[in-house]
Amino acid sequence: MDEIDARNQRQQPDAGHLRDYLAALLGNDGRLIVASNRGPLSFSRTKAGEWQAKRGSGGLVTALVELGRLAPVTWVSAAMDRDDRAASAALASGNGTQRALLDLIRRELPGQDLRLDMRPIAGEAWQRHYGIVSNPFLWFVQHQLFTLHYEPTVDDRLINAWQHGYRVVNELIAEAVLEHAQGQRRPVVLLQDYHLYLAAANIRAERPDALILHFNHIPWPAVDSWLVLPQGLRRAICEGLLANDIVGLQTDRYATNFLHSVEAFVRDAEVDPDGRHVRWRGRTIWVRAYPISIEPDALAAFARSPAVERRKAELRARLERAGNPKLIVRVDRLEPSKNALRGFIAFENLLKRRPELRKSVRFLAVQSVSRPDLSDYAKYAAAVREVVARVNGMADPDQAPIWLLDGSDYDLAIAALSLADVVLVNPVVDGMNLVAKEAAVVSRAALVLSETAGAAEQLASDALMVSAADVSGTAEMLERALEMPADERLGRVRRLRASVRDEDLQWWLTRQLRDLAAVSRGRRPPSRALRDTIRKFEPTLPG
Amino acid sequence: MDEIDARNQRQQPDAGHLRDYLAALLGNDGRLIVASNRGPLSFSRTKAGEWQAKRGSGGLVTALVELGRLAPVTWVSAAMDRDDRAASAALASGNGTQRALLDLIRRELPGQDLRLDMRPIAGEAWQRHYGIVSNPFLWFVQHQLFTLHYEPTVDDRLINAWQHGYRVVNELIAEAVLEHAQGQRRPVVLLQDYHLYLAAANIRAERPDALILHFNHIPWPAVDSWLVLPQGLRRAICEGLLANDIVGLQTDRYATNFLHSVEAFVRDAEVDPDGRHVRWRGRTIWVRAYPISIEPDALAAFARSPAVERRKAELRARLERAGNPKLIVRVDRLEPSKNALRGFIAFENLLKRRPELRKSVRFLAVQSVSRPDLSDYAKYAAAVREVVARVNGMADPDQAPIWLLDGSDYDLAIAALSLADVVLVNPVVDGMNLVAKEAAVVSRAALVLSETAGAAEQLASDALMVSAADVSGTAEMLERALEMPADERLGRVRRLRASVRDEDLQWWLTRQLRDLAAVSRGRRPPSRALRDTIRKFEPTLPG
Repeated sequence: MDEIDARNQRQQPDAGHLRDYLAALLGNDGRLIVASNRGPLSFSRTKAGEWQAKRGSGGLVTALVELGRLAPVTWVSAAMDRDDRAASAALASGNGTQRALLDLIRRELPGQDLRLDMRPIAGEAWQRHYGIVSNPFLWFVQHQLFTLHYEPTVDDRLINAWQHGYRVVNELIAEAVLEHAQGQRRPVVLLQDYHLYLAAANIRAERPDALILHFNHIPWPAVDSWLVLPQGLRRAICEGLLANDIVGLQTDRYATNFLHSVEAFVRDAEVDPDGRHVRWRGRTIWVRAYPISIEPDALAAFARSPAVERRKAELRARLERAGNPKLIVRVDRLEPSKNALRGFIAFENLLKRRPELRKSVRFLAVQSVSRPDLSDYAKYAAAVREVVARVNGMADPDQAPIWLLDGSDYDLAIAALSLADVVLVNPVVDGMNLVAKEAAVVSRAALVLSETAGAAEQLASDALMVSAADVSGTAEMLERALEMPADERLGRVRRLRASVRDEDLQWWLTRQLRDLAAVSRGRRPPSRALRDTIRKFEPTLPG
Repeated sequence: MDEIDARNQRQQPDAGHLRDYLAALLGNDGRLIVASNRGPLSFSRTKAGEWQAKRGSGGLVTALVELGRLAPVTWVSAAMDRDDRAASAALASGNGTQRALLDLIRRELPGQDLRLDMRPIAGEAWQRHYGIVSNPFLWFVQHQLFTLHYEPTVDDRLINAWQHGYRVVNELIAEAVLEHAQGQRRPVVLLQDYHLYLAAANIRAERPDALILHFNHIPWPAVDSWLVLPQGLRRAICEGLLANDIVGLQTDRYATNFLHSVEAFVRDAEVDPDGRHVRWRGRTIWVRAYPISIEPDALAAFARSPAVERRKAELRARLERAGNPKLIVRVDRLEPSKNALRGFIAFENLLKRRPELRKSVRFLAVQSVSRPDLSDYAKYAAAVREVVARVNGMADPDQAPIWLLDGSDYDLAIAALSLADVVLVNPVVDGMNLVAKEAAVVSRAALVLSETAGAAEQLASDALMVSAADVSGTAEMLERALEMPADERLGRVRRLRASVRDEDLQWWLTRQLRDLAAVSRGRRPPSRALRDTIRKFEPTLPG
């Protein structure tokens, strides 16, 4: 443990509160019901017919499976492919395969009282839900990825996919939730993300007594962005969400945007933006920010693991060959919203202004390929490669200013962050961005962060903040980060790390359950507006 | 006068109120000061050296030059080109050319006490202001025309253009305003549009007593869209506008977006969204919507003029050759924000579903070319032509479903609107859109209107409303419009026309001066939120 961690040493957040809230919510015999599009495990069979299970990555699964240690959990999801559907059928069958699968689940998720219910969805409905509505449409709208004068085109195919895909999947998931809610005194349901905007309405219709919280993992943009949806769709989405007791977003800005959306699109809703709630059809709906986070201890331990140490040694050797330059690091998927393009252009501008940095700095991008089948993504990746080629020219690999490494190697990503002098996280739009929080835990780097990353609300005061489109300001901040005195840098790292440790993944979960427990007692959920991001940092320009 | 106009017959809005407000504001010897980027006249010289003046088109000039009949007006603007600069120098010279130019101004703008002050701007500053900041950047940001993951790139060139172009022009215009304000008891200043966001701050610094209203002709998008600007720029813009007494926007939605922007970007501002004002540094700034309009009587008279009648006869003859089909009309510049592309695709979808309409309907687009030098615009125009070619195939011109005619011919545009059965106005983003209001005055057509046209706030209840991206819904509304029973259609036209007659160009101006007069007496400006657009019309989809 280094001295920064030593200074941050404090009482680990214990699971006691979480257990208390769960007990208050579930009573003696209740089971918490979690529903998400993708379940915590995906199943496959070897050629020999043997079942295998792979645990999903990402905060959602990491956070929610831990609940199974503290309380009985039933997790409803869609069966994602043929193997999932077969596993789902076998789990319901009562034969030998069922036992084998239950063993597998216990092995993958040990010590948990977790029941999985993967609902089979007809292939066509699934494709409409996932391949037409959720990913190429809602995800794009909410990440502002459309060029509005060309896209999207809301046509009969989309409307049809909404009615016979998105709606159907939401109904099937809600149906499963209702089955599990049967016999429960007051069922408690945690709905996840943009695939399930309509599920709460179906649940509420049958169980007015249910306690339902929907947490949305992706951004909620301003009213302007939602105007590309036909009235009927955007109202259905808002009204679907208003069937919850609590709507949770990643940031206060998204919560504000959600409140404005309800004000604009739901005729009979009364919105109280300061009180952060909506009155609608005799019910009160609370709107709260629950910024998702990471597990700092687990990550810190992983960063000291032999696998990561090996990668660090390799990187150190390469840096030595290059004359021990300073290291700027970015870690992300190569996709338009992450903004690698402007990041590299900013670096290029900095090198033009300060050519001597070509020797003394390397920009290491650990990037994984993302959706290469989407033409938008492929075109974007080509534009990024073009800038990299322009900057690197014919230099030999170690002397080239930009190093591109494979981001599917998580060991390498953590090793790179650990060795960084500067970490650049500059998404155009990003629900939260956990790399910024990982960097705070494993590195001693100055963090250059765009304000449109959800993480900015938490980290703005100790990161160097930029506007994502501002290549000029990004170049300036990279320079400032590279030249930051060590004591200032370490002071910032210390405060960033303390903040991430305070607001970790368990905190994210605890606040949701605390708020639900308050609602169940007819009280106002205690979580309120967290902080005010955009005004928090000073301009980089003189007026 | 047809029977619809006869029913609408009412007291013409008289100029009495306007004159009263002007008298109250200006006292005995004051002159109203108007400042805009472009002045009401642009000057040129024939080869023989003779001076000519051309009156600007558009609502701004039309509206504001009328002020000169009611009160003494001084109009400050930038000299747009070499001839303007020469005219500007000559006007200040006191020689024979000065007299010739003054005669020219009196001839073009008769019966007015109007003094023009065109300020010369150094060519480089002008190019930076106009060619880098205002048009390719601010106009694009405010019309949401950027593909966010590629554009804009805020680089040193833009920052430099801001500091040494935009700022300079604003200072020069403010300086001119201050010169004219000298000796005035309490100068009254009307600032126009997005070229002059900073001018009020310069004026206020010297004349804390000035009454200043800034009216913005283009949209004010949500906070999300402004995040592409560096902090310093967006704060400077908001603070510049807060130096006014009243900030006027085209619609309530833009006014709301402006209030949210101030809340997000100006650290020490207290925003009261319901009271529609801001408290900042000891002053109160009122935010109001003044939807710009047209002159219905003048337009109705023009629509009966011989030039327009000739065009109507030509069109009628062509329609007869085509077998007297029904007529859908659109009139606009061929540019991305106007959304011709989705309009034609919607028409194509309708023809696929109802092939018999190929015989009985024509879609006449009166379109003018816009900025063909901008590659975005050229690419968009090519995409539009491709759809038109696909729909028309090899049909002979009169039998082709889509007719493209030259939109630079205003006689033709008004003739086409006059003969239309359906008028389609479906911009993705549009500050106001006066074609929708012109159609209400000259045609008996059903109006299909997108909610993202500023005019939607006024016209939503009697137009057929669509979401601009919703090709499916647009096709449906075109069909409904074509088949609308005559009595329903005429009822809608009657109400649309009455609304446009009530809220005409003089009403636009009167409300601004009434509000300024209230502020001058220390009262709250009486104009409040006008109406609630987006919730006003029913969904086209069953939830």
